[in-house]
Amino acid sequence: MKEKKLWGGRFAEAPSSLMIRIGESISFDRELYSQDITGSISHSRMLKKIGILTAEEQKKIEDTLLLIKKEIQSGKFEFKIENEDIHMSIESRLTEILGDLGKKLHTARSRNDQVSQDVRLYLKEEISNILVLLYSLLQTWVEKAEKNIDVIIPGYTHLQIAQPIRASHYFLSHFWANVRDFEDFVSAKNRADELVLGSGALAGVNYQTDRAFLQKDLQLGRISENSMDAVSQRDHILKFLFASSQYYIHASRFCEEVILFSSQEFSYFRLPDSLTTGSSIMPQKKNPDVAELIRGKAGRVVGGLNHVLMMMKGTPSSYNRDFQEDKIPLFDAVKQVKLGIEGIREMVNGLEVFPNNAIRSLRSGFSTATDLADWLVFQKKIPFRTSHEIVGELVKVCSAKGWDLFTIPSGERGKINPVLTDPGYEEAIVLETSCDKKNVPGGTSKLQQKEQLKSAKRKLKDLEKMIQNNLTKGKKNV
Amino acid sequence: MKEKKLWGGRFAEAPSSLMIRIGESISFDRELYSQDITGSISHSRMLKKIGILTAEEQKKIEDTLLLIKKEIQSGKFEFKIENEDIHMSIESRLTEILGDLGKKLHTARSRNDQVSQDVRLYLKEEISNILVLLYSLLQTWVEKAEKNIDVIIPGYTHLQIAQPIRASHYFLSHFWANVRDFEDFVSAKNRADELVLGSGALAGVNYQTDRAFLQKDLQLGRISENSMDAVSQRDHILKFLFASSQYYIHASRFCEEVILFSSQEFSYFRLPDSLTTGSSIMPQKKNPDVAELIRGKAGRVVGGLNHVLMMMKGTPSSYNRDFQEDKIPLFDAVKQVKLGIEGIREMVNGLEVFPNNAIRSLRSGFSTATDLADWLVFQKKIPFRTSHEIVGELVKVCSAKGWDLFTIPSGERGKINPVLTDPGYEEAIVLETSCDKKNVPGGTSKLQQKEQLKSAKRKLKDLEKMIQNNLTKGKKNV
Amino acid sequence: MKEKKLWGGRFAEAPSSLMIRIGESISFDRELYSQDITGSISHSRMLKKIGILTAEEQKKIEDTLLLIKKEIQSGKFEFKIENEDIHMSIESRLTEILGDLGKKLHTARSRNDQVSQDVRLYLKEEISNILVLLYSLLQTWVEKAEKNIDVIIPGYTHLQIAQPIRASHYFLSHFWANVRDFEDFVSAKNRADELVLGSGALAGVNYQTDRAFLQKDLQLGRISENSMDAVSQRDHILKFLFASSQYYIHASRFCEEVILFSSQEFSYFRLPDSLTTGSSIMPQKKNPDVAELIRGKAGRVVGGLNHVLMMMKGTPSSYNRDFQEDKIPLFDAVKQVKLGIEGIREMVNGLEVFPNNAIRSLRSGFSTATDLADWLVFQKKIPFRTSHEIVGELVKVCSAKGWDLFTIPSGERGKINPVLTDPGYEEAIVLETSCDKKNVPGGTSKLQQKEQLKSAKRKLKDLEKMIQNNLTKGKKNV
Amino acid sequence: MKEKKLWGGRFAEAPSSLMIRIGESISFDRELYSQDITGSISHSRMLKKIGILTAEEQKKIEDTLLLIKKEIQSGKFEFKIENEDIHMSIESRLTEILGDLGKKLHTARSRNDQVSQDVRLYLKEEISNILVLLYSLLQTWVEKAEKNIDVIIPGYTHLQIAQPIRASHYFLSHFWANVRDFEDFVSAKNRADELVLGSGALAGVNYQTDRAFLQKDLQLGRISENSMDAVSQRDHILKFLFASSQYYIHASRFCEEVILFSSQEFSYFRLPDSLTTGSSIMPQKKNPDVAELIRGKAGRVVGGLNHVLMMMKGTPSSYNRDFQEDKIPLFDAVKQVKLGIEGIREMVNGLEVFPNNAIRSLRSGFSTATDLADWLVFQKKIPFRTSHEIVGELVKVCSAKGWDLFTIPSGERGKINPVLTDPGYEEAIVLETSCDKKNVPGGTSKLQQKEQLKSAKRKLKDLEKMIQNNLTKGKKNV
Repeated sequence: MKEKKLWGGRFAEAPSSLMIRIGESISFDRELYSQDITGSISHSRMLKKIGILTAEEQKKIEDTLLLIKKEIQSGKFEFKIENEDIHMSIESRLTEILGDLGKKLHTARSRNDQVSQDVRLYLKEEISNILVLLYSLLQTWVEKAEKNIDVIIPGYTHLQIAQPIRASHYFLSHFWANVRDFEDFVSAKNRADELVLGSGALAGVNYQTDRAFLQKDLQLGRISENSMDAVSQRDHILKFLFASSQYYIHASRFCEEVILFSSQEFSYFRLPDSLTTGSSIMPQKKNPDVAELIRGKAGRVVGGLNHVLMMMKGTPSSYNRDFQEDKIPLFDAVKQVKLGIEGIREMVNGLEVFPNNAIRSLRSGFSTATDLADWLVFQKKIPFRTSHEIVGELVKVCSAKGWDLFTIPSGERGKINPVLTDPGYEEAIVLETSCDKKNVPGGTSKLQQKEQLKSAKRKLKDLEKMIQNNLTKGKKNV
Repeated sequence: MKEKKLWGGRFAEAPSSLMIRIGESISFDRELYSQDITGSISHSRMLKKIGILTAEEQKKIEDTLLLIKKEIQSGKFEFKIENEDIHMSIESRLTEILGDLGKKLHTARSRNDQVSQDVRLYLKEEISNILVLLYSLLQTWVEKAEKNIDVIIPGYTHLQIAQPIRASHYFLSHFWANVRDFEDFVSAKNRADELVLGSGALAGVNYQTDRAFLQKDLQLGRISENSMDAVSQRDHILKFLFASSQYYIHASRFCEEVILFSSQEFSYFRLPDSLTTGSSIMPQKKNPDVAELIRGKAGRVVGGLNHVLMMMKGTPSSYNRDFQEDKIPLFDAVKQVKLGIEGIREMVNGLEVFPNNAIRSLRSGFSTATDLADWLVFQKKIPFRTSHEIVGELVKVCSAKGWDLFTIPSGERGKINPVLTDPGYEEAIVLETSCDKKNVPGGTSKLQQKEQLKSAKRKLKDLEKMIQNNLTKGKKNV
Repeated sequence: MKEKKLWGGRFAEAPSSLMIRIGESISFDRELYSQDITGSISHSRMLKKIGILTAEEQKKIEDTLLLIKKEIQSGKFEFKIENEDIHMSIESRLTEILGDLGKKLHTARSRNDQVSQDVRLYLKEEISNILVLLYSLLQTWVEKAEKNIDVIIPGYTHLQIAQPIRASHYFLSHFWANVRDFEDFVSAKNRADELVLGSGALAGVNYQTDRAFLQKDLQLGRISENSMDAVSQRDHILKFLFASSQYYIHASRFCEEVILFSSQEFSYFRLPDSLTTGSSIMPQKKNPDVAELIRGKAGRVVGGLNHVLMMMKGTPSSYNRDFQEDKIPLFDAVKQVKLGIEGIREMVNGLEVFPNNAIRSLRSGFSTATDLADWLVFQKKIPFRTSHEIVGELVKVCSAKGWDLFTIPSGERGKINPVLTDPGYEEAIVLETSCDKKNVPGGTSKLQQKEQLKSAKRKLKDLEKMIQNNLTKGKKNV
Repeated sequence: MKEKKLWGGRFAEAPSSLMIRIGESISFDRELYSQDITGSISHSRMLKKIGILTAEEQKKIEDTLLLIKKEIQSGKFEFKIENEDIHMSIESRLTEILGDLGKKLHTARSRNDQVSQDVRLYLKEEISNILVLLYSLLQTWVEKAEKNIDVIIPGYTHLQIAQPIRASHYFLSHFWANVRDFEDFVSAKNRADELVLGSGALAGVNYQTDRAFLQKDLQLGRISENSMDAVSQRDHILKFLFASSQYYIHASRFCEEVILFSSQEFSYFRLPDSLTTGSSIMPQKKNPDVAELIRGKAGRVVGGLNHVLMMMKGTPSSYNRDFQEDKIPLFDAVKQVKLGIEGIREMVNGLEVFPNNAIRSLRSGFSTATDLADWLVFQKKIPFRTSHEIVGELVKVCSAKGWDLFTIPSGERGKINPVLTDPGYEEAIVLETSCDKKNVPGGTSKLQQKEQLKSAKRKLKDLEKMIQNNLTKGKKNV
């Protein structure tokens, strides 16, 4: 016989099999078991404080909840689809053990504020984990940059070789993008960091719930201002999914470069064997699978953001059952972000850079053409646009004849414009010094690169402090 | 010790734990086991036909593959994360049992064409299942419409009561939307119905693969024209995800109406208890959870479409590892579409309509105001725009004083325009006949509703034939 | 004859008509004219400071740029598709007027850093405008809440009547959602508030650009750390589009409620005539068009977020021409957000609430069933789950017989459970006091509502200060 | 004084300025003027047929509508924001000229069926235009393939060189993808090809509208079955936006390849100067802007699909004002698809292929490693997986020492496995014959390429016929 639902008083028929299949969330929301128990323990302590539970009753409930936690962790807990969700599963087991006392735990609480609180606790914990991982990626960028400050690689725009840059410059460009991600994950964590228990179904509860006690016991940043808003909104999830999407957009762009630069044609980068796979049919292949998978996962995570945005759109205030599935893209994004950070970190860490291949491209790609134009401006006092045209003509002739700026004979240069035969020409196009002329803050000169490394390390220190404060404060109460 | 990868010849290091965790697909692509075995059996038969396998070898392979299928179905098969995907898992088991003979199966095949073929077989089967379910939903709409031809409910635009309609009209409007979905699922099935085996990694294979034999043996509609395109594209998945998204947009709109019309304020519809749930805190609630869940799932399925679109965007031709995860939104959409069709069908089936509540709205909502305006045009020869203004004024006066078109005293009507006191007035606003004046094909008159029911039944016959042909043709070869 | 492109030196053929049509952005990026001129003036001042321009030259350039600005504002400026974008259009006109001097302005600058800077200046200005508008909406919520503190309306979950709430509670729930939007727009503004000039094409510039001078002259919050990242990223646009999407999700939910609650069936809300339209064919309709349009615009703005996310995905570092169209969804979102805030504000402002209709729903919707259950718990010491079942049975009987909690005879109640005939029953279900029992912070009691109003006003003060600081700091330099 | 709205009878106040600004669609839906006039003329002819208009009246209306069309085409027509949309604008002008007679045109029609019909006529016309353009692109692919059948380029998987392929194979792979697009645009056209006039606001009209006459006069494929569905749904727009998105996904992938293959590092492809641009600061750049812009536009078009999907989600049946903006992404997609097809066609057309650069990659990329493995299987009877391992080892040694398969000394090969010193080795790796061994239908052998060209030309013939039938049938009636 089907078990009777806890809310089943009014109902003539038991839920149909379809209702159970379509309505259950226990297959995915069990991920929240630890937060649900944490929240319930704090709730029981508060019920004791306001006199709903005796000290003895509270102790029994807390002990039993901790016991259930162990049952779940050890795999002994039996999840039943009839219990629908993690909250009912735990409460049902509690009542099985404690009888009517178990039922008292739900006093002054609704599933609406309970589930919202659980997700907020979960987000706080998982974002903390993500910040630690992201910090280690940020460190890796800086280490990689520091090691490669003397390696010169092509800088591209439109995937056309534009100017020589220091590899440190390149690696740090990804560092700063990930710093913004760090900030946005922190911002999502702050949004989640709120006590919503006490909001009841939507209007508050008929008890003198001590919300300040709960906030302190659960170590949350603030108390929600409006109970209706508290159970209605999912902005903390949206904000997290956006930060995750932005991270993945950044990651997809680096992955694209890894794939490009480790192709046979570019060959500047080589991934360690441990991060690539072969082909079942083509023995020579060394496929940059981790990079490809992460690039593709950008779609997965953005798809999750879309899921929740569309799901929320046009729903009336307070809780609607539509929201049940907000946790599916949330849990998946948490998992993908962690994998995606680890994946990038491993790749950056293991990446070998091949300077000679990079230089080959730089020479054949006319990478110091701009420097030549600037030399015409500075030394020869030719207006910029005109110099630009002269150098454009030079490149065109080289392209047609298979020369580069280094190999075109002086006589041929003279045909384009006599100024190009001046003695300064050779110096103006030297790859090695081109970088160092970009000696403006943020630029690719060695001096500026050193400054940027210092700046990056200062930023790392700041972020480390932020994480440490956060870990101290965030210590769980159980 | 880690097992050596089949493609590992070239590699100095074994894949890292991260590579295994990020790269494995066995946790989700095992869903394809049956299609993979079907495809492999056909492939082995073809290898026999072209002399790569002896009859005896082929028999051993086929028997062993069928054995493996049973192992999987019975839950005895051990999936190992090191085997990465379903194809490797099965091949690895085959080789475990048959030794070197097992390795021969992969001759003239690549994972690129193999996985694409498996997904195509899967899509064909699952869309067939979806079509059968959708057919039963279409039947349910027609039955519901037929039963409710004499029930009059409000028709809304902008959620404002516009005109009375027959409930049959309303139910059939959803029928026709789902007919379009049926067509689009058929269209997605046809797109998938293609032999791609023989495409190899991307360029074809170095063997005289008999593709016509494979096509016949696998009962596929056609042979792919270009091997590179065959392994590159995922259009069959996109097309299926679009059809699924469109279905869910339709479903979300009906669900919105179920939620609205079963609210206390509307009260035209009542869902059976088996499809609703109560509240853990509010005993009077009868929540339309199935409708809400399906409405929310629209976001989930559209999120999946976005996932694949973004994943494909800007990738170069042929196979990229990004594509591995195309199966996650695909499998999920298949599951959600099946649940979502079943859910709508159960709701439509169990829905009670309350005509009295509908009529209450119709009267208070001035639903026959247009009829009155038309009466002025037809009988009183007043230009349409002018009649429209007269009736607008009438409605304004009624609204202000709490009357409806039936209760406003004749004298008050006369103050607005003497023509409104004419004897025809009462007849012009009768709810019961308003519908029947919309006697144009597609309209809500009883006559037209009967015609539409006939037309819907004819359509059902056509679709039934389509399904039957399809089931006959689609019979699997194993 | 086609005009020669400024960058045309190398090219044998002029761009094709297609290239011009597909490549031009002048049809939309002219919106940036003012920021482009502001940026160019600062750039010219900096060029003077570092000795590239004489004081006289700089003055000519600044004066001419201001002249061009006036030409544009007065509609006299002729935009030519051949000039492709707003930057070229202005530079080309400058050169037309000043000759070679005009060409010198582009020294030490690239279109890559220029366009990124222009967009950042634009975002800062427009977000400031949005914040002012949003602030006025926030004020309106508080005023509306204050006026309606004594109006009781139904609170819904699952669109089923759950509990009575004060209308102030409802309006403030939207206030707090929009406060989060305010915070996120500020956050997007801060992200944009960066000097990127000096980044050149990607690597910095070959000049001693004084970036600190530029930062101060343009009143920007900080200097970009890495020139490659500076021209590569569009995170400020993404962040703004996300904040806009979140705002529109909130707005779509309020609009849904306006549409519902102003339907004939709910009738709690009435929009002023000025914000609704009629039907061309149905004179009685009063359509909540503004609410519908804003609800629909949620799709438009989220579509724009998707546009930019997908556009960025998988592109290599630094500038790619793909990014040109980031401005289309950006400009559109700015416009839609402004319209959408104004629209919500006008609706909230003009909304009439009809308490009697709300009370009718509350009574027929068993809205105090929870209070009754709580009375059983508190006064009758019945465990919560059991009380819940008793009240569930009571509601079931009422529903079946057409009673509500107020009208069911005592004798009938006694049949369900004798405790329901106790004298406290009538008091327990009184609508007016139900609210006031939710006397927990964030709850719907009158006391708590007053507290929340105070809290909301404090928040308004904070935000007002933030805006004022911002307006003072943000004062443009031209 | 503000003009009175046609539907304004009921309203005390005129629409606010906000209502006009947020509600107007005339700024974008004027694009439908021609279809609106076409539909109105047919409607007037039908009204004559059923006796609502006299022949004389109809003639006046038709003549005046044609006059208005000319006014619009010549730019003389004054669009006023107060007239909100194109339908009101034209009707208002008609009434200005014809007085009360003009008002009669709207008899038996609603803006709901009118706007839906206009969009369907528009879609039919524009998809026909797109099909013609797409056909010319398909022709271009075939021509390009035919010219390049003897050019061998690398085939990639994971962007790693996999196997040599004929360039014809590559171009035809894009041909077949675009054939699917063609089919999907035809399918979207068929979905649109329906008469919906006569559906009225939602329930049909109170007149004996002759829908069969209208269908014939407007040359539409069928008559809508259900008036409520007819005004509710936007599936024809969704289907078109999906076909457009799929086209753009295909296009983005080809563009990615153009960008890659025309980079300095790959250098197989060169775009004509007319389709590239230079840099304002780097004279050597030849940027593949058209390819980049089209790649980026994929996000724009998919954003539009998302817009409409989210806009529709959860809206109740029949017309809601949300839908007004469905036309914005529709019109934009039409424009982008046309530009995007033209852009790809021009690029394909102008593309130069550089076989020598391709061969350089093929040799250094071990592109015939699979052929070598197959030689071991076929000639040396070594099981496939084992041969794969041997060749894997060979590649590893070559990579480490800077050899390729052609340059590694025989002695070194012998150290790996003696079989590699066999005389057949050199033949097994010849680039030129590797392709021709893939002699399976769909493969890259010269024979198969010729077959595929024939097949492609047959397909072109079929599509040409489809277009011609379509143009004949689709001839407009005005």
